[in-house]
Amino acid sequence: MNTQTGSPHYLHKFFYPESLVVIGVSLKRINLGKIIVMNNKNIGYTGRLYGIGRDEGEVSGVPVYNDLSKIPEIPDAAIIITPAKTIPAIMTQCGEKGIKHVVIESGGFSEYSRGDHSLEQEVLEAARRYGIRIIGPNCIGTINIENHLAMPFAIFKGSGMIYPGPISIISQSGGVGDTYLRIAIENHVFFNKFVATGNKLDLDEVDYLDYLMQDPQTKSIFMYLEGFSRGREFFDLAMTSEKPIVVQKSNRSAMSAGIAQSHTAALSAADDVVGSALHQAAVIRVKDESELIVAAKTLLLPLMKGKRVAVLSRSGGHAVITVDACYKYGFELVPFPGEYLEKIKTLYDTNIIAHQNPLDLGEIFDYTIFIKILEETLKLDNVDGIIFNHVYQSSYEAEMSRTFLNGVQELTAKYGKPVAVTLISDADEILDIQKNHPFPTFTTPLQATTSLWGSYYYYTRLRDRNGRGKPVEYPVKNNQIDSIKSLCLHEKRIPLTNEALEICRAVGIEPVKQCVIQNEKDARGCSLTWPVAAKLLSRDASHKSDVGGVQLDINSTAELEKAVKDMTTSISKLPGSPAMDGFLVQEMAPKGEEFFVGASRDPVFGPIVVAGFGGIFIEVLKDRAIRIAPVTELEVREMLNQLKMAPLLKGVRGRPALDVDALTDLICRVSWLIHTRSDIHELDLNPVIVHPAGKGLSIVDARVFFG
Amino acid sequence: MNTQTGSPHYLHKFFYPESLVVIGVSLKRINLGKIIVMNNKNIGYTGRLYGIGRDEGEVSGVPVYNDLSKIPEIPDAAIIITPAKTIPAIMTQCGEKGIKHVVIESGGFSEYSRGDHSLEQEVLEAARRYGIRIIGPNCIGTINIENHLAMPFAIFKGSGMIYPGPISIISQSGGVGDTYLRIAIENHVFFNKFVATGNKLDLDEVDYLDYLMQDPQTKSIFMYLEGFSRGREFFDLAMTSEKPIVVQKSNRSAMSAGIAQSHTAALSAADDVVGSALHQAAVIRVKDESELIVAAKTLLLPLMKGKRVAVLSRSGGHAVITVDACYKYGFELVPFPGEYLEKIKTLYDTNIIAHQNPLDLGEIFDYTIFIKILEETLKLDNVDGIIFNHVYQSSYEAEMSRTFLNGVQELTAKYGKPVAVTLISDADEILDIQKNHPFPTFTTPLQATTSLWGSYYYYTRLRDRNGRGKPVEYPVKNNQIDSIKSLCLHEKRIPLTNEALEICRAVGIEPVKQCVIQNEKDARGCSLTWPVAAKLLSRDASHKSDVGGVQLDINSTAELEKAVKDMTTSISKLPGSPAMDGFLVQEMAPKGEEFFVGASRDPVFGPIVVAGFGGIFIEVLKDRAIRIAPVTELEVREMLNQLKMAPLLKGVRGRPALDVDALTDLICRVSWLIHTRSDIHELDLNPVIVHPAGKGLSIVDARVFFG
Repeated sequence: MNTQTGSPHYLHKFFYPESLVVIGVSLKRINLGKIIVMNNKNIGYTGRLYGIGRDEGEVSGVPVYNDLSKIPEIPDAAIIITPAKTIPAIMTQCGEKGIKHVVIESGGFSEYSRGDHSLEQEVLEAARRYGIRIIGPNCIGTINIENHLAMPFAIFKGSGMIYPGPISIISQSGGVGDTYLRIAIENHVFFNKFVATGNKLDLDEVDYLDYLMQDPQTKSIFMYLEGFSRGREFFDLAMTSEKPIVVQKSNRSAMSAGIAQSHTAALSAADDVVGSALHQAAVIRVKDESELIVAAKTLLLPLMKGKRVAVLSRSGGHAVITVDACYKYGFELVPFPGEYLEKIKTLYDTNIIAHQNPLDLGEIFDYTIFIKILEETLKLDNVDGIIFNHVYQSSYEAEMSRTFLNGVQELTAKYGKPVAVTLISDADEILDIQKNHPFPTFTTPLQATTSLWGSYYYYTRLRDRNGRGKPVEYPVKNNQIDSIKSLCLHEKRIPLTNEALEICRAVGIEPVKQCVIQNEKDARGCSLTWPVAAKLLSRDASHKSDVGGVQLDINSTAELEKAVKDMTTSISKLPGSPAMDGFLVQEMAPKGEEFFVGASRDPVFGPIVVAGFGGIFIEVLKDRAIRIAPVTELEVREMLNQLKMAPLLKGVRGRPALDVDALTDLICRVSWLIHTRSDIHELDLNPVIVHPAGKGLSIVDARVFFG
Repeated sequence: MNTQTGSPHYLHKFFYPESLVVIGVSLKRINLGKIIVMNNKNIGYTGRLYGIGRDEGEVSGVPVYNDLSKIPEIPDAAIIITPAKTIPAIMTQCGEKGIKHVVIESGGFSEYSRGDHSLEQEVLEAARRYGIRIIGPNCIGTINIENHLAMPFAIFKGSGMIYPGPISIISQSGGVGDTYLRIAIENHVFFNKFVATGNKLDLDEVDYLDYLMQDPQTKSIFMYLEGFSRGREFFDLAMTSEKPIVVQKSNRSAMSAGIAQSHTAALSAADDVVGSALHQAAVIRVKDESELIVAAKTLLLPLMKGKRVAVLSRSGGHAVITVDACYKYGFELVPFPGEYLEKIKTLYDTNIIAHQNPLDLGEIFDYTIFIKILEETLKLDNVDGIIFNHVYQSSYEAEMSRTFLNGVQELTAKYGKPVAVTLISDADEILDIQKNHPFPTFTTPLQATTSLWGSYYYYTRLRDRNGRGKPVEYPVKNNQIDSIKSLCLHEKRIPLTNEALEICRAVGIEPVKQCVIQNEKDARGCSLTWPVAAKLLSRDASHKSDVGGVQLDINSTAELEKAVKDMTTSISKLPGSPAMDGFLVQEMAPKGEEFFVGASRDPVFGPIVVAGFGGIFIEVLKDRAIRIAPVTELEVREMLNQLKMAPLLKGVRGRPALDVDALTDLICRVSWLIHTRSDIHELDLNPVIVHPAGKGLSIVDARVFFG
């Protein structure tokens, strides 16, 4: 990341070049290079501009040379928009000239080459040789409203462009990025900086995120991603961000992986891992452009710090719909205190409408009363946020509505609570307000409620993330693991169950009492408390019960001898006769709920930990929670609460609460092990029998794979 | 419902009055009655209009009298918009005049009266006396574009009003109904008839639905409801509709019930029962106004008859997002056949983009090629519907885009397949097209995909509903049930478990082999196969296992005697000493999956049947399916498929498929019993042990409550 405090960020010149050259400008016809030069002249780029093309001359007063060496200075940045095959040579020319920041907008690299990366390699080698950093290829570059810089090759209308706003955008797709810019402007959500990542040959979203997190003008960061180049680095960086980060991550399934790859060469991670990583880092995930703009507006309002909502509505039907939406998100419709109601009655009284929450404003047509009621409601200690359904006729209430919104904006700032105003009027009117009024508004009660929920989600996630504490650094007996690993490598097999359990013990995870015997003759050497279970140890059979290699509820030495003998006989008759490496005898665990705890190494995000209830029901329902490892105790508690079956942990229907403390400790240890031992590829404890609170848990089985 | 074929529907004059009187028109000032008169003059109501007010004179050329008797004819319909307390007397005047259709728009009835319904009763009695039917009170009446009739008291702008369209609207809220009309017009979805139900003192949504189902101009019916007045009648009627019905049902939780009641006096049903009833009747349920308009547009396109989608996209990023949406809905992205690709290559060729599905059109700017490619794609037998992402610059592609949409409209009609076009352009442009172009378009890939999914959902639901067959009419031994019922009534208790099982046997549901004993001395009289279970029969303890009243795995007469003796001893020591009415001894069921099957009488929809997997996991997850009883075999199969745990029925992870045939038969019988025995309020079989396919199921417990 190379961020040196004091000196400018290594990406600074991509956004604030004092001089810029566009390579690929035609004098004779409109080409993309020419459009870029004209765009920057039109919107008033504050730096010095040059063009490079076949013919020398001028475009909109900008000098065009036929050779980089002729430019009278070393440009801070260059945009290349020439055919892909010409670019390695141009990179060398840039290097010779001393240019350190290059944006390659041309396509035709790996996204269409079906696996041939030689052209990209040449470009990258030239960059390394001269110390050049690259944005792209296959992108539309950067935009910076602060200095009126616009690298995209689309013709700019420029409307709304010249007011720098608080949000900055990173987009992996030019087309989607363009949509973001458009809808932002159309919703009076002004942006500050924009960058399209393209194929991420050199710089990627982690670099851009790092830059924007440090950029003083950027207050929140919006990203469209089809894949993560460096998932773990992204996660680690996002974990430290005090600026809200909003991500639309597409390419969610195997179905899209093919098309996304051909389009911008994106890496894939399982979508539930992506979702978990973003959740853990307090990143707001949106699923489409409409959710994105709701998130952007939400972040312009004060955050919602609790779940208590007041609804003020000019239409009864819309009040009912709003209450449904509040119910959906688990919001509480607080009862209004008596004093408040008395105060409201001094503002407007009625014989026929009950004063309650939602408050029906259907009979009021005086906008000053709306503002007074709103202020009284904002004053209430038991209200965290307000939804105001503003149903009106644009033909005669348009101006009053705008004045009203000014008042709402002032009150929102004064009381530090969000007011989500729903505009229910005709489409032209709504479009006009949303485009031209600075106060963010919503179009349906559901959207307004979704906004408050998103606000509350972000508030609590950020609070929990910042308060998560540090992962406990458990001592790990590495020798113990190393010797098992050596033996397995030597014998070219995965660890046996007893060895896998031994690896768990190395990080302090204690299995049930057990002993290993080779055959029935050893049975009487086992000094365990009855009943016990006997399990086959076999390098060939990872699913012991499938081959009849498990016997439960054994109550005496004689029974144990018989069980082992029976298993030996029947397994030896199996086709392929799986190896018998002995038998693991374990004390039977007391009853409890089956849980599974696993850890693995995600190709994108690295070590992760997974947990959930066990058994076929939950396997079919995929009720599991995932976190990036290592996790803290508080992270695990939040993770467990996320399970659909979480009520069972707390006790439900007369069942006792389960030992969440022991489970939390276990998950922390497993996550620490996968974090600290990078040679462990996967680790599963399944089942873990979780007992009632205070009674701990029983570890009876484990599998470990070295990577 | 009184629908007589040949003669006009009893609601006809509410929509086609040849003469109409508005009662409550002021000459001196603008009041609501005056606005209604002026609205109708403005939009050109084709019938004869009269007003009634304090002063006589004219409003917009319409004669206003101070007494109904002065009107020179008997008006087909009257609108009353005077204070609530004046209305009983006016009803009598209407009756005397001979008016049979009255719309009461005034509020101030039960919605604000906190339980006092005397005013409403007076109005209703007057209506009954004179054979008057009433719309309202507290409503905005009807609109009919066919004859330019508009009863609402809001000022009409009239734009879009004068083209009668194919959809008609029923709304329980005037405010929400107004929103529907507005967004319909703004999306070029023209409507035909509209009615606001208000408080439903007389006529309700069932009457309006019945009328609109028979109205030749209405092709589809959109409803906003906060409650069902006659849920079962609504269901039965909707089951017969060949016109699509789209319902937004709000007031989904206890949280909203209070406000909805004060607002329009609506009845509540559990939301999952509502959802199930609508699903069963092939009614499309939408959750908000934006889903509603998507549904309206969807129904203007041909229906989607399969799950195979082709995506054509002018932007790679939007193609990826579209594929994600297709994945979400379980659509299949079909591979394009070789011949098709050859044909496409004759239309446009490229060296760098792979021809695949989604097809990237990023390099094409010739709109005639779009149309040709679209037509080739529509010709493909393996494509059921198409999503076209139209990303464009309105500044220079606006006109071409409109011509393109004309072409798409023609092709859609020609090939009978839906093409969901996503418009990705600036907001003004999109608003203009959506308002003014007749071809329905969408604004995001997710919305377009949602439309195709909605289309496919409706197509399959309608097909399955129409092909559901008839419920089997199982013989019921009513004597058997009656005698148990008499005994229970006499002894003032609910049926004991053995009696509940006997009630099940009356409809052919056979429990496991069992006998009833009074105490341990009777044990040797039981001629069952070991092992058996012994269960307490007690009128006081409905949860036997909670009081230690269940013993399993009993293997001999001696064990049985001991079990019964032990239970007798321990239960007699319990506080309150619950009655011991004997013991039920049952053969232990072979292993299987626990299921529950229940039936009850919903306050709104009447008899319903419920089924799902049993156990605490599923209880917490609420994985259950509900249907209105009686059900057919095909309905039960579809119902079972809806369970999240359905994979377990078909066999998963090496587990055998379960006996779905036996389960289906059981659910049909339970549903027939609750349907045919209206005195049974509730019936639960829990657990039902379902065995592998062909092995049947074991009924071991039942509870029955008479209503």
